[in-house]
Amino acid sequence: MPELSPEEVYDLDRAHVFHSWSAQQKISPMVIADAEGSWVTTGEGRRLLDFTSQLVFTNLGHKHPRIVEAIQRQAVELCTAAPATAVESRAVAAALIAGKAPDGMQHVFFTNGGADANEHAIRMARLHTGRHKVLSRYRSYHGGTHLAVNVTGDPRRFASDDATAGTVHFLGPFLYRSAFHATSEAEECERALAHLQQVIELEGAATIAAIVLESIPGTAGIMVPPPGYLRGVRELCDRYGIVLVLDEVMAGFGRAGRWFAYELDAADGGWRPDLITFAKGVNSGYVPLGGVVISRAIYDTFAERPYPGGLTYSGHPLACAAAVATIRAMDEEGSVANAERLGREVFGPGLAQIAERHDVVGEVRGVGAFWALELVSDPATREPLAPTGGTSPQMAAVVEACKAEGLLPFANSGRIHVVPPINISDDDARLGLDMLDRALEKSAG
Amino acid sequence: MPELSPEEVYDLDRAHVFHSWSAQQKISPMVIADAEGSWVTTGEGRRLLDFTSQLVFTNLGHKHPRIVEAIQRQAVELCTAAPATAVESRAVAAALIAGKAPDGMQHVFFTNGGADANEHAIRMARLHTGRHKVLSRYRSYHGGTHLAVNVTGDPRRFASDDATAGTVHFLGPFLYRSAFHATSEAEECERALAHLQQVIELEGAATIAAIVLESIPGTAGIMVPPPGYLRGVRELCDRYGIVLVLDEVMAGFGRAGRWFAYELDAADGGWRPDLITFAKGVNSGYVPLGGVVISRAIYDTFAERPYPGGLTYSGHPLACAAAVATIRAMDEEGSVANAERLGREVFGPGLAQIAERHDVVGEVRGVGAFWALELVSDPATREPLAPTGGTSPQMAAVVEACKAEGLLPFANSGRIHVVPPINISDDDARLGLDMLDRALEKSAG
Ligand SMILES: Cc1ncc(COP(=O)(O)O)c(C=O)c1O
Ligand SMILES: Cc1ncc(COP(=O)(O)O)c(C=O)c1O
Repeated sequence: MPELSPEEVYDLDRAHVFHSWSAQQKISPMVIADAEGSWVTTGEGRRLLDFTSQLVFTNLGHKHPRIVEAIQRQAVELCTAAPATAVESRAVAAALIAGKAPDGMQHVFFTNGGADANEHAIRMARLHTGRHKVLSRYRSYHGGTHLAVNVTGDPRRFASDDATAGTVHFLGPFLYRSAFHATSEAEECERALAHLQQVIELEGAATIAAIVLESIPGTAGIMVPPPGYLRGVRELCDRYGIVLVLDEVMAGFGRAGRWFAYELDAADGGWRPDLITFAKGVNSGYVPLGGVVISRAIYDTFAERPYPGGLTYSGHPLACAAAVATIRAMDEEGSVANAERLGREVFGPGLAQIAERHDVVGEVRGVGAFWALELVSDPATREPLAPTGGTSPQMAAVVEACKAEGLLPFANSGRIHVVPPINISDDDARLGLDMLDRALEKSAG
Repeated sequence: MPELSPEEVYDLDRAHVFHSWSAQQKISPMVIADAEGSWVTTGEGRRLLDFTSQLVFTNLGHKHPRIVEAIQRQAVELCTAAPATAVESRAVAAALIAGKAPDGMQHVFFTNGGADANEHAIRMARLHTGRHKVLSRYRSYHGGTHLAVNVTGDPRRFASDDATAGTVHFLGPFLYRSAFHATSEAEECERALAHLQQVIELEGAATIAAIVLESIPGTAGIMVPPPGYLRGVRELCDRYGIVLVLDEVMAGFGRAGRWFAYELDAADGGWRPDLITFAKGVNSGYVPLGGVVISRAIYDTFAERPYPGGLTYSGHPLACAAAVATIRAMDEEGSVANAERLGREVFGPGLAQIAERHDVVGEVRGVGAFWALELVSDPATREPLAPTGGTSPQMAAVVEACKAEGLLPFANSGRIHVVPPINISDDDARLGLDMLDRALEKSAG
């Protein structure tokens, strides 16, 4: 390969590939012929600046030489092995991940992606507590398998909604569309915690195994929680004996300018979750990998009795070798600090300027390389430019205008997310912001 | 890598890797330092003949040069891409898989493994039929996520058993331990079909979305169904409007001497399932990959309305490149025919001789490179050498004796499975049978 022309790739895709979340006859997938760093090349030979990191996973961009080399080496040395064995790349990957996790969370159960990481985290929590119910936020995404999609709090759940799944949804802090009639972040935080406490008490604390929470909800809109919120959830979990599962699948591994995004609210190291789920950035998506970082107390639950779960490719050596190379590259290249700086120096100020210039931008929020623009048809009513889980001619026009400028945008409902590789150059970051600015000018005024 | 000594790998594994299906403090994972073809090398430098294909997935063995080379090439050309795009390795993999599937099943939805393949197949069936319930066999394994493990019919389900999951289990044909008091394969077949029909009618056909069935139950004991059984299930599904999902995760891609094991009962091409789930052998497990092959009718259900499911790594380019190389290598090397021949010429006769020589072998059954020995403490009562889902000192002794002979055996409950790479040399296959013979002699007489 490449053996086929882009047209042949397209035709073969249409004839044989069933695409996720799509009406199969209503899509025209973009052919990707090549990709390098923060850029992708389409079948027509156009280069697009990738402000999506694909699905927010190529944190170190495409063709990172150290990850590619690690994969090539592992492929010939020991490409695969059964999960019951001990192999070097898996053991080293687990040790490196544990090294980024807080003290008291030193064991890693590997999965293939984010959905199964959450499925297994929930099983661990249920068996550890002997309770069944799982609380999670509206406006969240936790994966596509049956239990994970039922924990999910966005419209992708609806078609699989299962009233018997044991999942209950609550409202999180989101000042721009406050459910709590709050007027400040501090008030939103306080009221959201009071709401959660009410839900816990009304559901019955003794029925609740876990609260599953994206440290920063990603696909649902990158709502960075106000200071004190996550810590407050931790306190509620402690008070009621509930396992706190933080989903860092999208927010973790540098995206938010921290190894794990929850650290933004734990600067003093004063608290930690019980389980952390991860995927995506752990190896920049080069090989499917996800997992659960496990606290000592939960590890101990399965020290003498078996953990009743597994999967064929748990700790796949090739995927783990890519994780080892990714984490080492991030360490040596200072990628996490770079994401933090990009947010502070480039994306924060740059997007604020864009918001000032365009009425269609209702709010800009984010941190690191993890930003969202709320597009609204009316700044006063904050009516979204497209409904939750849907699209609109106006949103489609924004997306098309971005592509015309040479920018690959991440669009969801009435939002544009700015989620490029965290090692994007400052020049490319600024170039992308300019493209976005012009695209908004042309499409939405 | 390797940067660490085997002792260091072991210690790091114990300190940081949480292993599946295990009590963490009761295991001593074997270090794998190297592997080639049908052989693995332990941390102590012992070479063991791999009669397990790890977890029955290295169908072409370790270090197959064509798969390794394809991975190395794809890693640098286009290692990863979002699922919504069209990329060559994904399109070609889908086309090749569709080419092995029957007419009328030409679309492939890719997942990361077997569990999520079954989860998505069940969602498709539920939405296609508008019904909820899923029927599956006792003595089956369908994966570790919540819904997949509830469909599962072996003890791994127990700890996650969910009476609300909508799963119902029936008994399949298994003459050696007949639930139907049958005395011949034909009688077992007829009675098992009558039983299934009863369950369908008693559950209410109009409540049943799908029957999920391993074409040949694998981990549960490699019970090759009697001729006519699968065809009979197809007829029941037709009569009652039920989607037939055949799980070919373990049995497919050559293991049973056919591209798909169900072909053993469809020699005339007279019938096909509605959905086929696969993983493992599709790329010899070199990169995590699974998927669902979809009939036209079910594809059409999602032609104009979205399929509400997905995952970040659906159709991962690196995993698909490994599948392309694997399927092409299997074509050119005649691996599927070789598996069939091995079963007929080597494993069938060789295992029959072993059974004759050892009273502990209650039955030998299988096809291709897919065989099971029932070990029993008493041939008359057929009391298994270890209980279902458990082990015993006697079984542990058999396993230890195999390793002492230089053979890595696959043990489950009271059975030894013979599931080496399907391209194992005849000499190695015979060598492994001799090792097994001696191990049984020494451990079980
Ligand atoms: C926060 C979060 N959790 C879980 C998932 C599911 O991960 P996967 O698609 O790998 O199953 C995603 C995917 O986008 C995610 O963003
Ligand atoms: C028949 C069958 N189906 C499904 C699975 C689950 O596959 P995975 O472990 O990749 O999730 C397995 C795994 O052994 C299997 O043998």
